[in-house]
Amino acid sequence: MTREITIALDAMGGDKAPDMVLKGAEIALVRYPELRFLLVGAADRIAPLLKRIPKLEARSALIHAEDVVTGDAKPSAALRTGKRSSMRLVIDAVAEGAADCAVSAGNSGALMAMAKVVLKTMPGIDRPAMASFMPTQRGETVLLDLGANVECDAENLVQFALMGDAFARAVLGLLKPTIGLLNVGSEELKGNDAVREAHAKLRAGIQGLIYHGFVEGDDIASGTVDVVVTDGFSGNIALKTAEGVAKLFFEFIGAAFRSSLFARIGYVFARPALMQLRDRLDPRRHNGAMLLGLNGIVVKSHGGSDALGFASAIGVAHDLCTNGFLDRIKTELAALGAPVPASSQAAPV
Amino acid sequence: MTREITIALDAMGGDKAPDMVLKGAEIALVRYPELRFLLVGAADRIAPLLKRIPKLEARSALIHAEDVVTGDAKPSAALRTGKRSSMRLVIDAVAEGAADCAVSAGNSGALMAMAKVVLKTMPGIDRPAMASFMPTQRGETVLLDLGANVECDAENLVQFALMGDAFARAVLGLLKPTIGLLNVGSEELKGNDAVREAHAKLRAGIQGLIYHGFVEGDDIASGTVDVVVTDGFSGNIALKTAEGVAKLFFEFIGAAFRSSLFARIGYVFARPALMQLRDRLDPRRHNGAMLLGLNGIVVKSHGGSDALGFASAIGVAHDLCTNGFLDRIKTELAALGAPVPASSQAAPV
Repeated sequence: MTREITIALDAMGGDKAPDMVLKGAEIALVRYPELRFLLVGAADRIAPLLKRIPKLEARSALIHAEDVVTGDAKPSAALRTGKRSSMRLVIDAVAEGAADCAVSAGNSGALMAMAKVVLKTMPGIDRPAMASFMPTQRGETVLLDLGANVECDAENLVQFALMGDAFARAVLGLLKPTIGLLNVGSEELKGNDAVREAHAKLRAGIQGLIYHGFVEGDDIASGTVDVVVTDGFSGNIALKTAEGVAKLFFEFIGAAFRSSLFARIGYVFARPALMQLRDRLDPRRHNGAMLLGLNGIVVKSHGGSDALGFASAIGVAHDLCTNGFLDRIKTELAALGAPVPASSQAAPV
Repeated sequence: MTREITIALDAMGGDKAPDMVLKGAEIALVRYPELRFLLVGAADRIAPLLKRIPKLEARSALIHAEDVVTGDAKPSAALRTGKRSSMRLVIDAVAEGAADCAVSAGNSGALMAMAKVVLKTMPGIDRPAMASFMPTQRGETVLLDLGANVECDAENLVQFALMGDAFARAVLGLLKPTIGLLNVGSEELKGNDAVREAHAKLRAGIQGLIYHGFVEGDDIASGTVDVVVTDGFSGNIALKTAEGVAKLFFEFIGAAFRSSLFARIGYVFARPALMQLRDRLDPRRHNGAMLLGLNGIVVKSHGGSDALGFASAIGVAHDLCTNGFLDRIKTELAALGAPVPASSQAAPV
């Protein structure tokens, strides 16, 4: 059943690259032995590292890239001057069919710009979006867009709903994901024009989509819906606010356990349970934002990720490849008719 | 030194009113014995409750209000038909000078609409904002706007910065609060037009204001700045996302401590430290959103608040009255010149 999957890895992207990338690939290979890798980057830096991981070396091809897109490069500049960069070459590999998907922990804006130019958006999608998941009381919730589109109209939001639905089916394995639209209240008249208009379109009914209605910020963590749709500005702020609060919590809890002798004793007993809790909320387990709406699979790992986090991002790429994400989203878009019609009837194609 | 302060309380606002309001006032009175209250609401419901709290009765006057603004009332409808409501009468009391400030746990939209019509915005302020604070690694951070203004231009954001500055000085007692503008990245070119333009204005320099620059969602909890400025859509989402994550965390930690016998033993030892942690993050301690930019002080308590939370909201109202918040913000606006000038020079008034 398990066909071979080739993933192109931007070996130079991320704060701790290339070491972190190779170690991440090594971890991913334990979990998914069917993977093959194209390691793209500075050959003189990667080759000696690769030598030390024979199991990875056996499943990898090394492709030299002269340039690196830096973390502070503007997307437009990266597009113009980064044609020989490791980031560009992994996307090219997907476009040319040399790889099934690409993973990079490099500059998000540059990655999105390059992926859009090289892979192009799918028919029926105006703008690609970035999606990821967050831990909730019920499991995990998909959140999109996370910053690719700072300003969105109603049409964009409806398209995000479709992409989020397909993503939840492919990566979380859900059969009937529920969709919510992020707003500042649950009443019909709340929010801005784009949100209200998208709500009306989704409420009218779109084939195959289970629309719950408006959700609020606290619904993200409570897992009220499986997919939370919003514009890139709010989505980015929600994601990072949640990350900040989680970090604060772990620091406060550390301080609480150091605050007295009794608390220290309590820690000794509670340690395994607390470690489990930390694992459950570990942001590295939820690493891997997907660029949705393109004719190809590109996964963005957190720039500050370590090897374990990068392995999670590879895992997301693996799931998207094996679960037919691209076909699924194409089918949904076709059933819907592209562009999205104002009525609830799905137009035959 | 402590002059008498009269606070008008909307005794009918909030899920657990009027009981919660009276108990909250009782708690606040222990902390601030100089307070006096105008209790506004259905006399036949309040009088018997008040009889049971003689200390509160001695410091209160009961004012009958025929109507109640319901939680689902539209602001426009509440404005038209709610002229004899408890919510309206507490705002009227502030406008007429019968009370120094008003506190309500009722419908936010209606409260904002009524306060704006009755008290009017200050000269130099186009739109009032709603502000509150969140716990951080360094103490507390003021966040505004929290939902009063779903769409904001650069001018609004600059005015929010001024109001947030005055609020941080008055309520948190900070001498030199730092201000950050919420965005999806820290680089100059990130964000939408309103955010970039406001950044340029604040960067150019406004007298008395210490502008840090752009901040991101995770900076809220890390306490990078004392005041985080954003539009009402993003602010509401950030606040509620943070609340949701905090709630998730407490549920996860409860589950972790119930997960094994060892963990249960650990809990016994660590309990006092964990209770302290819970207190530190208790949303009830951070209750009380202030309506900023009006000619009068109105504090909004969370609708689902209990007596302890309502007492915190009364505490915020108390601090704003005693620390000369209104005068401070007027002075800042005057020094700045109203409307906000494009240049960095403060116009003499």
